Amino acid sequence: MSTAENAILEMGKPATDNGLATALAQLKTLFGERMSQSESVLTSHGKGEAWHAPQLPDAVCYPESTEEVAAIVRICAQWKVPVIPFGVGTSLEGQTQAPFGGISIDLSAMNQVLEVNPADMDCRVQAGVTRKQLNEWIRDTGLFFPIDPGADATIGGMTATRASGTNAVRYGTMRENVMSLTFVNAKGDIVKTGTRARKSSAGYDLTRLMVGSEGTLGVITEIGLKLHGLPEAITAAVVNFPDLNSAVQTVIDTIQTGIPMARIELVDADYMDAINHYSNMNYAVKNTLFLEFHGTTDYVAEQVRQFQEIAGEYGAGDFEWATQQEDRNRLWQARHDSYWAILAKYPGKKGFATDVCVPISELANIINDIRAVVDDSPLTSEILGHVGDGNFHMIFCMAPGDEETLKEVYRINEILVQKALDLGGTCTGEHGVGTGKLKYLRREHGDGAVDMMQTIKRALDPDNILNPGKTVTA
Amino acid sequence: MSTAENAILEMGKPATDNGLATALAQLKTLFGERMSQSESVLTSHGKGEAWHAPQLPDAVCYPESTEEVAAIVRICAQWKVPVIPFGVGTSLEGQTQAPFGGISIDLSAMNQVLEVNPADMDCRVQAGVTRKQLNEWIRDTGLFFPIDPGADATIGGMTATRASGTNAVRYGTMRENVMSLTFVNAKGDIVKTGTRARKSSAGYDLTRLMVGSEGTLGVITEIGLKLHGLPEAITAAVVNFPDLNSAVQTVIDTIQTGIPMARIELVDADYMDAINHYSNMNYAVKNTLFLEFHGTTDYVAEQVRQFQEIAGEYGAGDFEWATQQEDRNRLWQARHDSYWAILAKYPGKKGFATDVCVPISELANIINDIRAVVDDSPLTSEILGHVGDGNFHMIFCMAPGDEETLKEVYRINEILVQKALDLGGTCTGEHGVGTGKLKYLRREHGDGAVDMMQTIKRALDPDNILNPGKTVTA
Repeated sequence: MSTAENAILEMGKPATDNGLATALAQLKTLFGERMSQSESVLTSHGKGEAWHAPQLPDAVCYPESTEEVAAIVRICAQWKVPVIPFGVGTSLEGQTQAPFGGISIDLSAMNQVLEVNPADMDCRVQAGVTRKQLNEWIRDTGLFFPIDPGADATIGGMTATRASGTNAVRYGTMRENVMSLTFVNAKGDIVKTGTRARKSSAGYDLTRLMVGSEGTLGVITEIGLKLHGLPEAITAAVVNFPDLNSAVQTVIDTIQTGIPMARIELVDADYMDAINHYSNMNYAVKNTLFLEFHGTTDYVAEQVRQFQEIAGEYGAGDFEWATQQEDRNRLWQARHDSYWAILAKYPGKKGFATDVCVPISELANIINDIRAVVDDSPLTSEILGHVGDGNFHMIFCMAPGDEETLKEVYRINEILVQKALDLGGTCTGEHGVGTGKLKYLRREHGDGAVDMMQTIKRALDPDNILNPGKTVTA
Repeated sequence: MSTAENAILEMGKPATDNGLATALAQLKTLFGERMSQSESVLTSHGKGEAWHAPQLPDAVCYPESTEEVAAIVRICAQWKVPVIPFGVGTSLEGQTQAPFGGISIDLSAMNQVLEVNPADMDCRVQAGVTRKQLNEWIRDTGLFFPIDPGADATIGGMTATRASGTNAVRYGTMRENVMSLTFVNAKGDIVKTGTRARKSSAGYDLTRLMVGSEGTLGVITEIGLKLHGLPEAITAAVVNFPDLNSAVQTVIDTIQTGIPMARIELVDADYMDAINHYSNMNYAVKNTLFLEFHGTTDYVAEQVRQFQEIAGEYGAGDFEWATQQEDRNRLWQARHDSYWAILAKYPGKKGFATDVCVPISELANIINDIRAVVDDSPLTSEILGHVGDGNFHMIFCMAPGDEETLKEVYRINEILVQKALDLGGTCTGEHGVGTGKLKYLRREHGDGAVDMMQTIKRALDPDNILNPGKTVTA
């Protein structure tokens, strides 16, 4: 570890007990019942949905406005106490843990949709609004918010993690869909970035710098978002293939042909088995693509024809179609519940989820290679992913405390990440860095870029109080 | 001006004569004939295409590799001499001027296409490659690079300015199309950002921070870009409307209907007159939309039907269609030559171009309001723009040295920008800040965001040698 990295870790050390006690007392005065130090609350806030062992904050505060968030950060800045933003805790790489203690800022009470502009297809929400809540709210406008990481995450959390999910292949990730932000910086000042204009060349793109910064540069409190018109026609389908290669080659050809897939998801055979059991479906236990087509009625029909032609060349089985909303919901619910389906398959075990993203032409290579590595190991692992983007997930299940298995999981994760980097890809397509991918950052970006990230972090948060230990410290 | 702003301007002051002389001598040793101090070269590098009076650098260097750019910056860093990146000088807000002297780094010799990956629809180019050169190079791959600011700008310049243009409504701006970068930082180190993966959550989005930073955070030398599949069918058209409102309302309805316009450009009646004269066309002298539809043959036909229906409701005149490439080229060349057409209309005068971008629902409001302001003034001004994004340009022509007219142009520009900001828009949709829009940055973003930009600038370029006086000093 470099001197710089040691220094930044130093900065993340907990405040003196005196400072912490004073900060807690000041926060208690301000927040009263809306601050908790109960063991169960601390535990639920010291972890995400991931495998990582919980690391507890010293207290959880529930602010109801940007001004209240600013008040928390000002107190914490004064006493050098860490602040850790918290949405609904669905992150997968330890983003909400509190390795140095501090105050978990639970934004769930900031759940107002502040503004919807149907004519301009945009809106502004508080950070605690979840994606399903937003879509429910705008249901009658003919618009929807497409980004869909599976979990009903908060918009604030999705922004901070640069989330994406099944629809990103067509509608982009949070990077493309966040228009503006309000956040609280390390001093406790309120900062606004971006406008409602669709494009701008007016200065540094601070909005994009904040998207994906995982709470390490500021606590995001309000988000301006692009919305999209609900398509006239939506058709979903499930189709299986004789082997993994055929499924992946179908995806590659489809993207290269320019069919504007709204969703194109790979689920491997083992995963399909788990999904059938968990969601009571009868899909063939084969390597499968879940699909969705959006457009005018005629254009969807044309996309379907084009896709069928490609899939046919790779020996696709029968298509199971879903055009009614109810059927589509059932299909996608089954896909989204896949994480729970896997956990149900291995009772008493916990899931270790990892994700990488590669250039799409390398998809078949890396999936086959890593499959072989897993097959040679004592582990099992299921693969599924947003393959239209070159992004896929592996999930390993293991018993809590099974250190030997964990060591093997780490070994395979290491091989997976290195392969992705060797192929021109990234160590995480959408789960983020948190603490789990910290060690790969320098390997992916090189010293120049990571040093630049650290320089920015230090300049904007010299006392390292903003979610210390995440994103940039390694 | 705040103390902070004064301080950053202080930093931009020219190096001591000794330092400059030493730097020039060291550069001469390295670059020999590839360094010039001739008056004509200095003059052509001390200005863009804009109205702004030239401000000359002390020398121009022509590096041929990233390593040579690094060598220049290391020398300039040692002697605190400004470096100003230069592509082909088509910027419009003074980005290439040298208000504090220094070294203009002309990247035109770095014009190699380094890598094209048809399967992944991406490429990597040196900063001096122009957009037309790139499209020529990849002509046989079935792919194209859509971003089209009119001028045959370099990819490096387009990246630095966050350029966009006519196709952005469909294909995005440089923000959405740059995947990775190589640049030289203020110390002269080579930094790489991004990967070939379509998405990533791995750390701060340094690529997006660099896109639009106008050379103030680093000298961009290589760019990884997304490419797009050439559509099966392309149809272009020109159609006029009884008045400006009808044309603008047609645009608003079209975007809201979800027709994926590849181009939808407004040109006002006066502008059409100039275009007819300059490009020898016979278009009606009316408020006009230039259109382009991309897709499969059937889908383009459907888009055209949908558009005609909307335009018909607003009293559109006859459509002039262009489906053959030759006809389309002629049509778009006429549109792109509009700037020269205006200059030709006012012989001996120079153009002052400004651009703003607003939420699309406010387009008719702001255009009508600013039209009324111009009509009440002694000036004339033509309006055209990328109205599908809510982005439009005004051009004022005036004789060099006509200070009274200039004062009036500034007054109207001020009203235009303030209106755009009041409507939730931005002071520049695509021309950038340079020196011309500096004074509006704080008004648009507020103190919090501009202070954050300055903090980042100082942390990454403490001696303010990277294109000083641009983007963030006000």
